[in-house]
Amino acid sequence: MQIPNGLEPMNPSTADALASERGKAKFDVAEMRRFIIDEDMRTKLDKVNKVLSEDTETFNLRDVYFMSRKDKMDHALKIGARLIALMKEGRITSDEIVIADMVLDINGPFGLHRAMFIPTLQNQATPEQQELFLKPALNYELLGCYAQTEIGHGSNVQGLETTCTFVPETDEFEVHMPNVRACKWWIGSLGVTATHAIVMAQLIVNGKNYGPNPVVVPIRSTANHKPLKGVTVGDLGPKFGFNVMDNGFLLLDHVRVPRINLMQRYITVSRDGKVSRPANIDPKVTYGTMVYVRTNIVRNMSMVLAKATTIALRYTSMRRQFSGKADKPTSNNAESPVLDYGMVQYRLIPLLAKNYAMFATSQAFLKHYQECMAELNSGNFASLKELHATACGLKRWTSDVAIYGIDTCRHVCGGHGFSQFSGLNEFFGNSYPNIIWEGDNYVLSQQTARFLITQVRSLRKGKALADNQTTAYLRKHLPSGHIESVPGPAFVGRSIESIAADPEAQLDLLSYRAAAMASELVDQMDKEGQSWNRSLVAMQRLCDAHSDYIVSSYFRRHLSTLPAASPLLPVLNKLAALFFLHTLEQHSSDLFRLPGRAAFTTRQTAEIDGLLTQLIEEVREQAVPLVDSFGLSDLHLNSALGRSDGQVYENYLEWAMEDPLNRDDIGMAIRTEWFNKYYKPVLHSAEAKKQAKL
Amino acid sequence: MQIPNGLEPMNPSTADALASERGKAKFDVAEMRRFIIDEDMRTKLDKVNKVLSEDTETFNLRDVYFMSRKDKMDHALKIGARLIALMKEGRITSDEIVIADMVLDINGPFGLHRAMFIPTLQNQATPEQQELFLKPALNYELLGCYAQTEIGHGSNVQGLETTCTFVPETDEFEVHMPNVRACKWWIGSLGVTATHAIVMAQLIVNGKNYGPNPVVVPIRSTANHKPLKGVTVGDLGPKFGFNVMDNGFLLLDHVRVPRINLMQRYITVSRDGKVSRPANIDPKVTYGTMVYVRTNIVRNMSMVLAKATTIALRYTSMRRQFSGKADKPTSNNAESPVLDYGMVQYRLIPLLAKNYAMFATSQAFLKHYQECMAELNSGNFASLKELHATACGLKRWTSDVAIYGIDTCRHVCGGHGFSQFSGLNEFFGNSYPNIIWEGDNYVLSQQTARFLITQVRSLRKGKALADNQTTAYLRKHLPSGHIESVPGPAFVGRSIESIAADPEAQLDLLSYRAAAMASELVDQMDKEGQSWNRSLVAMQRLCDAHSDYIVSSYFRRHLSTLPAASPLLPVLNKLAALFFLHTLEQHSSDLFRLPGRAAFTTRQTAEIDGLLTQLIEEVREQAVPLVDSFGLSDLHLNSALGRSDGQVYENYLEWAMEDPLNRDDIGMAIRTEWFNKYYKPVLHSAEAKKQAKL
Repeated sequence: MQIPNGLEPMNPSTADALASERGKAKFDVAEMRRFIIDEDMRTKLDKVNKVLSEDTETFNLRDVYFMSRKDKMDHALKIGARLIALMKEGRITSDEIVIADMVLDINGPFGLHRAMFIPTLQNQATPEQQELFLKPALNYELLGCYAQTEIGHGSNVQGLETTCTFVPETDEFEVHMPNVRACKWWIGSLGVTATHAIVMAQLIVNGKNYGPNPVVVPIRSTANHKPLKGVTVGDLGPKFGFNVMDNGFLLLDHVRVPRINLMQRYITVSRDGKVSRPANIDPKVTYGTMVYVRTNIVRNMSMVLAKATTIALRYTSMRRQFSGKADKPTSNNAESPVLDYGMVQYRLIPLLAKNYAMFATSQAFLKHYQECMAELNSGNFASLKELHATACGLKRWTSDVAIYGIDTCRHVCGGHGFSQFSGLNEFFGNSYPNIIWEGDNYVLSQQTARFLITQVRSLRKGKALADNQTTAYLRKHLPSGHIESVPGPAFVGRSIESIAADPEAQLDLLSYRAAAMASELVDQMDKEGQSWNRSLVAMQRLCDAHSDYIVSSYFRRHLSTLPAASPLLPVLNKLAALFFLHTLEQHSSDLFRLPGRAAFTTRQTAEIDGLLTQLIEEVREQAVPLVDSFGLSDLHLNSALGRSDGQVYENYLEWAMEDPLNRDDIGMAIRTEWFNKYYKPVLHSAEAKKQAKL
Repeated sequence: MQIPNGLEPMNPSTADALASERGKAKFDVAEMRRFIIDEDMRTKLDKVNKVLSEDTETFNLRDVYFMSRKDKMDHALKIGARLIALMKEGRITSDEIVIADMVLDINGPFGLHRAMFIPTLQNQATPEQQELFLKPALNYELLGCYAQTEIGHGSNVQGLETTCTFVPETDEFEVHMPNVRACKWWIGSLGVTATHAIVMAQLIVNGKNYGPNPVVVPIRSTANHKPLKGVTVGDLGPKFGFNVMDNGFLLLDHVRVPRINLMQRYITVSRDGKVSRPANIDPKVTYGTMVYVRTNIVRNMSMVLAKATTIALRYTSMRRQFSGKADKPTSNNAESPVLDYGMVQYRLIPLLAKNYAMFATSQAFLKHYQECMAELNSGNFASLKELHATACGLKRWTSDVAIYGIDTCRHVCGGHGFSQFSGLNEFFGNSYPNIIWEGDNYVLSQQTARFLITQVRSLRKGKALADNQTTAYLRKHLPSGHIESVPGPAFVGRSIESIAADPEAQLDLLSYRAAAMASELVDQMDKEGQSWNRSLVAMQRLCDAHSDYIVSSYFRRHLSTLPAASPLLPVLNKLAALFFLHTLEQHSSDLFRLPGRAAFTTRQTAEIDGLLTQLIEEVREQAVPLVDSFGLSDLHLNSALGRSDGQVYENYLEWAMEDPLNRDDIGMAIRTEWFNKYYKPVLHSAEAKKQAKL
C-alpha cells in the first residue's frame, strides 16, 4: 500500500515549522547537552547509538507496535541474545547494555539476571559461593532471577510465607511454599528464562525462625530448560506494560538444596545447625545499596520524561489548529501552532522546566551520594539517614512527575497521542512500574516524613542533630522545633518578582514551607494525639514539599557550576525561576497557610500567576532547542510525531500503511477470512434469507 | 498446568474478608441499586446479562487478555456478528447491543455504523435518501462510517481540506483529498469494515465554497469488500486502547458520486447548480444532538468509574499488609486490610462518593435535558445555551474523574493493579478516548467559560438574563455582575460542621466560589485587557468550579426524590457531605481567595480536613455494600481482584496458568523454539567455544 501519486505538497509544511523553531535558538544545543546530560550517560548513549546503528536489522523497532506479546518477546530475546554475544566479543559492556535497553525501551528477559541476580551474588555470597554461582552467572552459563515478592506479600518483607528449613539429616535446606499466598509473584526473568532463582524465605533452623534470607534454588535444567522436580513455574500473564519481560510465578513443593545454597555472607548455618552472623558487617551498608538504586531511578526518570517532552514539544510546534485565536499573528493567516495556545503552553512548558530540574538534580544528587559513600567507607555514617530519606522523596517525586508527565504529553498531542506511533503509549506502560516498585510512592513517602518528624522532635527536645542539607533548613526555620519561634523569614515583604530573581530567597521560601509543614504535623501528632495512620495524607504532602525544596536546591547547585558568563545561563535561569513559580502556583494553598506574617495574600498569588505566564511565553520560544538538547535519537523516540526531521504526517500515514492488516499478503488473507466469516453473512443475510425461501 | 495438591488453605481467607465486609451493610443493596442506577440502564443491563449468559461460548472474555490485536478483532467481530444475528431474530435491540458492548468492554467494528452512520442518515437525509441509504443500513446490507476528522484537522471542522465539487456536466460530485493533511483519520469502522462512508467535505459549487457538508461515498464493494476505484483505505494501526475498533484512514482521489449522495435535508444543490437551504430548520437543533451525546457520556462515565471502584474497594478490603499499623485491631494479630490505611481510604472513599454523585447527576441531568427538549419542541429555545454549556462542563468533569479514577484504582491495587487480570488496564485504554473525543476536555471548557463570561457581562450591562440554574446563582451572588456587591454570602460565619450538614449552605458556598471566579475573570479580561488566549488556564478552573456546583446540585436534587424516612438516606447523606468536603479540600486555595469576609482561614480549612477524615472512616465501613449496589456482574468486571466471590489469589494464579506461554501444547512449542534459538546459544556458548577449539 502506498500514498497515491499526485497529492500536492502541504503548505505550510511541518518540517519547515520545526526548522523555524530551531532557528530561534539563543544558545548552542551541543553545549547545552554537555551541561544537562551527565558525562557518563552521554558517553554511554553515544557508544550505544553507534553499536545499534551498526546492526540495523537486529536493532529495529519499526514493527514493534504491530507485534503480539509473543512476537515482542521473541524480538526482545533476539536483541538480548545479540547484545550478550556483543558483550562476549568485547564490543559492548554490561553497563552499556542497560542503556541500550533504555534506548530501545526493551526490558527483556535477560534483564533481571544482570540487575538483581548478579548483584545479589556479588554482595551476599561468600568467595566459595561466588565460585559456585557468580562465576557461571557472569558467563551466562546459568540464568538467574531474584524471587522475593509473594502473591500475598509485597511491601511487608517480614511477612513472607516461603520457608527454608534446615534438614540436619541430609545437610540440606528444604524450600517450601505452604499455601497459594506464598507463591512467588512478579519475579522478573522467572516466567520463561531463569534456570536459577535466589529465593527469599524464612530461614528456620531447629524450629527457630531467623527471618527472611536468600537461598539459591535451581529451578530449570540448563540442558533443556525443563522445570526441575517439585517446581511449578510459569509466566504470570500480560500486563499494562513491560510485556517483553517474563515476570513469573513460582511454587516450590518441599524442594531440597545443599546447605551451601543459602547466601552466607551475613548469616551462616553450620553442619550441626549452629546459626551465626559474622561480626563487623554494618547493616547500614544495605541502605547504601537502596539509595544507589534510587539515584538510578532519578536519572532514568529524567530520560523517560525527556522522551515525552521531546515528542510533545516538537509535535505541538508543528501541529496547527485554528487561525487568529492565539495572540501571535501567523503568515498568510495560516492556522496557529497549538504550542501558541495558552493552555498547551501551561501544560508543557513547566513540565519542560521540571525536566531540566530533574536532569540537574540527578547530577547534583549523584555527586552528593558519592561524597556520602566516601564518608561511609571511612566509617562515618552520619549522613546516611538523611541521604536515604531524601532519596526516597526524590524517587517518589521524579517518578510521579515523569509518569504523569508522559500522560500530559500524550493528551496534549490530542487524538494522535492515542496512536501507538506517537511513541508515548507502550512507553507509558513500560515506564509506569516506577511509581510502584522500589517502594510504592505512597508507602515510600513515610520514610522521608519519618526522618523529618524525628528531626523536629529532636529539636524540640534540644538534642543535637547531624549536619546535612535537611537539618540545615530545619534548624534555620525551627531553631527550637517550633515554627512560631521565627518571627518572619527573610522572604517576607519582598515582591514575587524580586524573590523569583534571587535563588537564595527561593530556597528560603521553599524550605520554610517544608519546615512549617513538618512542625504542624508534629504538633498534630504530639499535641493533639493524631495517630500515624491518620497522619499519612499529611506525610505525602510533607514529603513532596521537602522534595520541592531539594530539587530546587540541587538544580541551583548544578547551575552554579557554570561560569557566570556562560551563554547557557540566561535560558537556564529562566527555567529555574519558572520551575520555582510553577511550584508555588501548584501549591498556593500551602502559601496561604504559612504561619503569621509569612502567609501569602491573594495579591501575591496573582503576582505569581502573572509572572509565571510571562516566563512560560518566553521559554516557549526556546522550547524546541531545549528538547533538542536532550539529544535523543529517532530510534530512541520511535515516534511519528516527534521525528527530528519534522516529516510528521507523511511518515505517520506510511507507518499506518505498514500495519499487517493493510499488507497485501497477510493483511489480504486476514481480511478475506473475516469477510467470509463475519461480514458476508451480515451483509448478505437478507439475500440469503430470500434464497432460502425460494 | 495446575496448582499443586497439598497446599494449605489460606487463613484468614480473602473470601471470608469480603463476606464480613458485606455483613456490615446498614442498607439493602438491591434497594440502593434501584435508586442509584437509572431504570433504563438497569433494565437493559439485566436483559443484556441474561442474553449474554445464554451463550457463554460466544460471550466469553476469559482469553481476551491473552489475545493479539488480530485475535481480539476476530473475537470482537464474532461477538458483533452474533449480536446482529440476535437482533435480526428479535432477541436483543440495537440499543441493548450498545449496553452489551459496554458490559463486554468491546467497542467492535460494527459500532460506528450504529452510533454515527445511521443517526446521521436519520437526521440529515431526505425521505428519498433514507430509502436509498438508511433502509439498507438498518438492515446491515451496507456498513457505514462517519468520516469527518482529517490527519491535520481535528477540532477545527471549518478547516477541513477534503472537497466535494459539483460537476454539472455529469450531474455528480467529485470528492477529493488534495494533500496528505486532508487524509481522513481516526474514522471508526473504516479500517476494515465499512462499505460506505459519510464524508465531511467542503462543498464547492460553481467555484463557491459552502463549507463542510456530508456526502455518502461508497468505498468498498458489498460483494467482495474490495476498495473501489480511487479509494485508498486501511486501518490506522495499533492504539493505546480501543484496539478491537478498526479506526481507519481514507484518501479519495477524484472519486465521483451521484448528486443524490450529498445529504440534502439542510442544503440542496439542484441539477443546474443552484444551492438552497430549506426554511424553518433551526440550526439550534444540532445543539440538542450534541447535548444528547454528552448526557450519554456522563452516564457512561459513571459506569466506567463503577467498574474501577468495585474492583479496587473489594480488593483492598481483602488484601492484607502489615500488622498493627492501622488504627483498628485485627483478630489473631493478622495483617490489616489495606483499606484500613488512611492513605488508601483517602484515595478511594472520596472517589466512591464522586461515583455516587455521578450516577445521581446523570439521572437528574437527563431529566433536566428532557424538560429542555420538551420546551425546545414547543419553540422555546431559552434554555438551550445553558444546557449546552453545562453539558460541556459535565462531559469534561465526569470523564476526567472517571479516567483518572481508574488510574487511582489501579495504583491503589499495588503491583497487582498492573496485571491485565486486574481488569483495569485494557479497560483504562479503552475508556481513555472519552477525555479527547466529543470535544477535547481542554478545548471544551471554553464553551462553559464563554457562557459564564457572557452572562456576567450582561449583568454588568444590566441586560436581562434567561432563567436557569446558572443564571440563578450568578444573579444571586453578582446582582450587578460584581462580586463585591454582595457584602457577605449566607455561609459566612457558620462552622464547617453546620455547613456540611446543610445542603442549601453547601450549594451556596460552591456557587459563590464559581460566581467569584467568573467575576474575577471578567475583571481581568475587561478591565485589565487580558486576552482570550491568556485566559485559558483560568477558564479551565472556572469551568470546573461551575461543574462542582452543578454536580452537587444534581446530586442533592436526586437525593430529594427519596422519602425522608428512606433507610438509604443516612449513608447517602454522608456520601454527599463527604463529596462536598472533599471538593473544598481539593480546592482550598480557591477558598482562601474568596473575596472579603468570605475568604477562608487556616482554622476553617483545618476543620474541613478533620471532618473529611472522620466521614471517610465512617463511609469506609460501608464501602463494599456501596459498590455491590452498582450490581456489576463478574463478566462485566472480568477481574481476578474484584471477583464477587472474593477468591482472589487462587483465581489469579489459575488465570496466569492459562497464559498461552504456560500451556502444554502451544506454550511448550514456543518455549522449545526460544530455548533452541536464544537460550541454548547463550547458556552453552562457553561449551560451544570449548568444543570448537578441540
